[in-house]
Amino acid sequence: MGSVEELPHPFDPLTLGEIEAVIAVVKKAHGDVHFNVVTLHEPRKAEMKAWLAAPDSAPRPKRVADVVVIAPGGGVYDGLVDVSGPTIISWGILDGEQPIITMEELQLVEHIVRKDPGVIEQCRLSGIPAEDMDKVYCDPWTIGYDERFGNAVRLQQALMYYRPDVDCCQYQYPLDFCPIYDADKQQIIAIDIPKVRRPLSKEPPVDYHPAAVNARGGYRTDLKPINITQPEGVSFQLSGRTITWQNWSFHIGFSYREGIVLHNITFSDKGTVRPLFYRLSLAEMVVPYGNPEHPHQRKHALDQGEYGAGYMANSLSLGCDCKGSIHYLDAHFPTRAGGVRTIKNAICIHEEDAGILFKHSDFRDDSVIVTRGRKLVIQQIFTAANYEYVVAWVFHQDGTIQPEIKLTGILNTYAMLPDEDTKGWGTQVFPGVNAHNHQHLFCLRVNPNIDGDGNTVYTSDAVPGEAPVGSEENFYGNAFYNKRTKLATTGEAKTDYNGATSRTWEICNPNKLNPISKKPVSYKLVSREVPGLLPKEGSLVWKRAAFARHAVHVTKYRDDQLWPAGRHVPQTSGEPSKGLPEWIGDGTESIDNVDLVLWHTWGLTHFPAPEDFPVMPAEPMTLLLRPRNFFTSNPVMDVPPSYASTPSQVAAGNQGVLNAADKLSKLAFSNANGGSCCGTNGTNGVNGSH
Amino acid sequence: MGSVEELPHPFDPLTLGEIEAVIAVVKKAHGDVHFNVVTLHEPRKAEMKAWLAAPDSAPRPKRVADVVVIAPGGGVYDGLVDVSGPTIISWGILDGEQPIITMEELQLVEHIVRKDPGVIEQCRLSGIPAEDMDKVYCDPWTIGYDERFGNAVRLQQALMYYRPDVDCCQYQYPLDFCPIYDADKQQIIAIDIPKVRRPLSKEPPVDYHPAAVNARGGYRTDLKPINITQPEGVSFQLSGRTITWQNWSFHIGFSYREGIVLHNITFSDKGTVRPLFYRLSLAEMVVPYGNPEHPHQRKHALDQGEYGAGYMANSLSLGCDCKGSIHYLDAHFPTRAGGVRTIKNAICIHEEDAGILFKHSDFRDDSVIVTRGRKLVIQQIFTAANYEYVVAWVFHQDGTIQPEIKLTGILNTYAMLPDEDTKGWGTQVFPGVNAHNHQHLFCLRVNPNIDGDGNTVYTSDAVPGEAPVGSEENFYGNAFYNKRTKLATTGEAKTDYNGATSRTWEICNPNKLNPISKKPVSYKLVSREVPGLLPKEGSLVWKRAAFARHAVHVTKYRDDQLWPAGRHVPQTSGEPSKGLPEWIGDGTESIDNVDLVLWHTWGLTHFPAPEDFPVMPAEPMTLLLRPRNFFTSNPVMDVPPSYASTPSQVAAGNQGVLNAADKLSKLAFSNANGGSCCGTNGTNGVNGSH
Repeated sequence: MGSVEELPHPFDPLTLGEIEAVIAVVKKAHGDVHFNVVTLHEPRKAEMKAWLAAPDSAPRPKRVADVVVIAPGGGVYDGLVDVSGPTIISWGILDGEQPIITMEELQLVEHIVRKDPGVIEQCRLSGIPAEDMDKVYCDPWTIGYDERFGNAVRLQQALMYYRPDVDCCQYQYPLDFCPIYDADKQQIIAIDIPKVRRPLSKEPPVDYHPAAVNARGGYRTDLKPINITQPEGVSFQLSGRTITWQNWSFHIGFSYREGIVLHNITFSDKGTVRPLFYRLSLAEMVVPYGNPEHPHQRKHALDQGEYGAGYMANSLSLGCDCKGSIHYLDAHFPTRAGGVRTIKNAICIHEEDAGILFKHSDFRDDSVIVTRGRKLVIQQIFTAANYEYVVAWVFHQDGTIQPEIKLTGILNTYAMLPDEDTKGWGTQVFPGVNAHNHQHLFCLRVNPNIDGDGNTVYTSDAVPGEAPVGSEENFYGNAFYNKRTKLATTGEAKTDYNGATSRTWEICNPNKLNPISKKPVSYKLVSREVPGLLPKEGSLVWKRAAFARHAVHVTKYRDDQLWPAGRHVPQTSGEPSKGLPEWIGDGTESIDNVDLVLWHTWGLTHFPAPEDFPVMPAEPMTLLLRPRNFFTSNPVMDVPPSYASTPSQVAAGNQGVLNAADKLSKLAFSNANGGSCCGTNGTNGVNGSH
Repeated sequence: MGSVEELPHPFDPLTLGEIEAVIAVVKKAHGDVHFNVVTLHEPRKAEMKAWLAAPDSAPRPKRVADVVVIAPGGGVYDGLVDVSGPTIISWGILDGEQPIITMEELQLVEHIVRKDPGVIEQCRLSGIPAEDMDKVYCDPWTIGYDERFGNAVRLQQALMYYRPDVDCCQYQYPLDFCPIYDADKQQIIAIDIPKVRRPLSKEPPVDYHPAAVNARGGYRTDLKPINITQPEGVSFQLSGRTITWQNWSFHIGFSYREGIVLHNITFSDKGTVRPLFYRLSLAEMVVPYGNPEHPHQRKHALDQGEYGAGYMANSLSLGCDCKGSIHYLDAHFPTRAGGVRTIKNAICIHEEDAGILFKHSDFRDDSVIVTRGRKLVIQQIFTAANYEYVVAWVFHQDGTIQPEIKLTGILNTYAMLPDEDTKGWGTQVFPGVNAHNHQHLFCLRVNPNIDGDGNTVYTSDAVPGEAPVGSEENFYGNAFYNKRTKLATTGEAKTDYNGATSRTWEICNPNKLNPISKKPVSYKLVSREVPGLLPKEGSLVWKRAAFARHAVHVTKYRDDQLWPAGRHVPQTSGEPSKGLPEWIGDGTESIDNVDLVLWHTWGLTHFPAPEDFPVMPAEPMTLLLRPRNFFTSNPVMDVPPSYASTPSQVAAGNQGVLNAADKLSKLAFSNANGGSCCGTNGTNGVNGSH
């Protein structure tokens, strides 16, 4: 880190070297601890804003590491380290809190389970002989919260499976019992055994790996390749981790917890750089399962707080996870022992054609403009044991930001007896396999600075005019309008989706009116996949994942209030609820015209079906953050059209029209190239007559 | 039409030759009438099903034309013509019904408006001198329904605009008065003049055509091309208009009214051809505007019944409207005088890469499978005066059908005074331009035959278990399930969207149980853009567009019940409502285990903003028809993966893995090719240590 040019941006994740330096100083001070987290402690916002406004003159925010370690004996320590020393700034032991479970901790459990006499006995009872214990697998989940054990001891529950062959999809042979693992002692301390036993199924497997597909007749051969190339390169630039593309600019971070974190998102509006969002991320999620039988209530993974969307990130590959011209960013994390692991290609960045951006034809003369759109995709994929989550942040040229999540991977499954009644809590997706109902609920954290500081949130509902049909004000009954309701306090801001009014939420800057519409400049949250939390009020999930109680919460911005289920999530009891409810308090705090954070919980409810098994075709969900009354006119008129003719050009026999149609497009069943376009090969006119 | 091979498929639109033959026989019998409609009268379903089941032995359904003409004097006639003769089968005059307005009728109005002394006088009052009448334009709309004029006379309302220059976007200079045009007399019979006058705005224009963009600084230059090519050709085949692709098969029709009509949609499930839908189309739409001031209540276009999604279809172009390898189908329609006009490339058909189809990694060893998906897009675009609708029928490999509509084009606008209060009924999108609130509501007509005849519709709601938290049945409160409610009668089937329960509608075959889940095989309608009709009960729109009163209606199938606002839509009064309410009657008819039609109204509510002007960035809306409990396992496991490694292959150093990564993908900032893939360039493993 010699010259100024090489300094990491204050939003950059800790570099490999910084992580090593921090680990070294912690080891020196505290000996052989297990490293749980070594991550960027984000710059204090006040400092950071000053620096962003004047990077040449304002003090550069310090690089600080947020560190969590587990000492021998199970003591958990939180610390902050000034990276520049490096120097430990603060250090303290926690009481009754369990930090995130790392991949290494997860991977240990299976080996211990296989050797545990109690587990071996349960396997025998299930029909698996002791010599087959190498075919027994477990997906270790944090225990969530189990009132029998509390949170003083670090625990995992081992969801048990059998693979007849190492290459079999393991989720087709679930076992019916559940060992409890003590991470400090590295041993099984209990086994939950159901009242009704469900022995190992003997059903022949249905696998998705190539040998299995080939044995069933092989792959389809009728899919012709589609090639996507950018011979002149990509349209985005990166300076460090700050990307610029089509008037957008933002910094791409990555954390062990949230995965992709976007900072300082701005849009250049005819040369004026206008701020939009100081920070955007998926901050938490919860996947509650709907089977009330013990111990399935413990299946409600808060995957980001409990395992980490960064820690579970896939290493992505050219031509597999994305096609075209791709840029990748790596991620670095500490290992348990104090090394560094690198996830190569943790983030991929690429462009995609986005279809028609705008089009209009004049029906009088067929003069036409047609312009194709482009999108920028910042993507990661993480594997949470059985499921994969493909998280894409899609940027559109018109100022829209579209977070999109695709769910794929494999259903979590449980054993069932032949003809067992699932009681509506699940579906038999394969003989002997019960896939329980569940929800995937994600919490989008939005810290806006729409056109500057001081923002306010309104609900926006489409409602009929109040006056009755036949009245003077609404004689024909067709009146309707956009009913805006200010969310003035954190209490008022606890709001739910309303499908009947197509509710959206408007994040506006009350200090800036659009000069044309005279309405406050705003971004609108348009989100339609908002099922709400189905576990009831007072339920374990409701207590632990309080962010999911409402579609929207709003709080006043405070540094370090990043994760709405709390900082350390495993084994929280929810009594009291951590995170968001603590920050909201009595609900009287004003959030009108302040630096605010909007927390939006969205997702879907999944009632499994056999077509989801043994691997699930991707199911997408998405939402939009759209500029409304933000620009004074369409901001994409200067995107070059594919074709543009005007009435005067049509009248002049199409002289002077702009024809930039893609010349590589071809007719499917001939060799004709593209290039003839709207004005020439097409006519809406009358070409027969008599 | 000599040999059997050349016969049109019974679902084919009338050929050019057939239209000519029908017109000739009608002219011979009835003289010089104006041709309004000459279209396929679809085969009676009973006959057609028999023929589809045994095309070699069952009688081939006759080709019959459905004909509508307007005689001199305004008499409207409906007729059927046996194309094989051709012979007129039936012929009859209508009373008080106005058939669809054709493009030719629309185009006549402007010329007459410009010469009308009353209009010239109103223009003068607005600030337009008589010598500038060539700069006055109108968008002629059917009058909808105006109680002053009824429906005996064929009328249009002329929405008036001024273009300072022929190449200006006309919607930036709306005029405040509205002439009423009599189509039979071809003259203006009245002019609606508002109480408050709004003279022509003098604001300089903001245009989107190239000269205007160049004058403002020109096009952006930083967008690099994305090329999409299929060097080995496309993956679909066409036999006539029957397409086969990735286990799908269906017939692609096109009508003047609905545009794309899909018939006999089947899916080959491991070689067994299973029926899904007998017919799918967008059957009607309504665009109500929310300004209650007279005469804006008349702005509620039922675009398909009043103008026709086929009649208004764009002629599409290679490399503009679609990229890649495209197949086009033309459309033929009668002209008013009895000729034939051809819309070249009215439908485009192409494939697109669909991102990740499925993926799973084993966190133990990073063994992974990643498979990319493909989609098939059948698309048309129609221009309804100011707006364009991009209608795509997207087919996915997993059995999902995804109708998608993109809205673009230009807002309908009205004049406003400087600082005029829009009273919440609209937004100033440009100085002097008020864009009124409006909805775009589409009616999807679904005639299912899910796995055979006899289908039933259920609502499907995600709800918490009934038992309280702490009870034995739901101790931890996490129980939730899919509550299914049978819609047994047409009355019960009038159902609305419920956002709180993420309501979907299940179209199932109660006679066929999924052998794994033991649930009825089904397709689920997953639709989240369901704003409901905002004009009130009893309003003019509510009466005329009765299909929009509920998100879902279900009727028993009957031949010719195709269009839910009635056969002839212009100038219906809604007293009584035509179409769907007539067919539903008292609501007691059973729709359980019958041949049924599901009518789904979906769409969006648009509160305009300046960024929508002068041309609107495309706004997409979509829904899904998804197989649930239809297949016995994931139907896309045989799609060739990009990369697949198994645990045993990983253990053997990645010997034998399937690596078919796209070799053309490149790193954005180097010349490195793709081809290294998941198992080789990526590692999740620990690569630092000490």
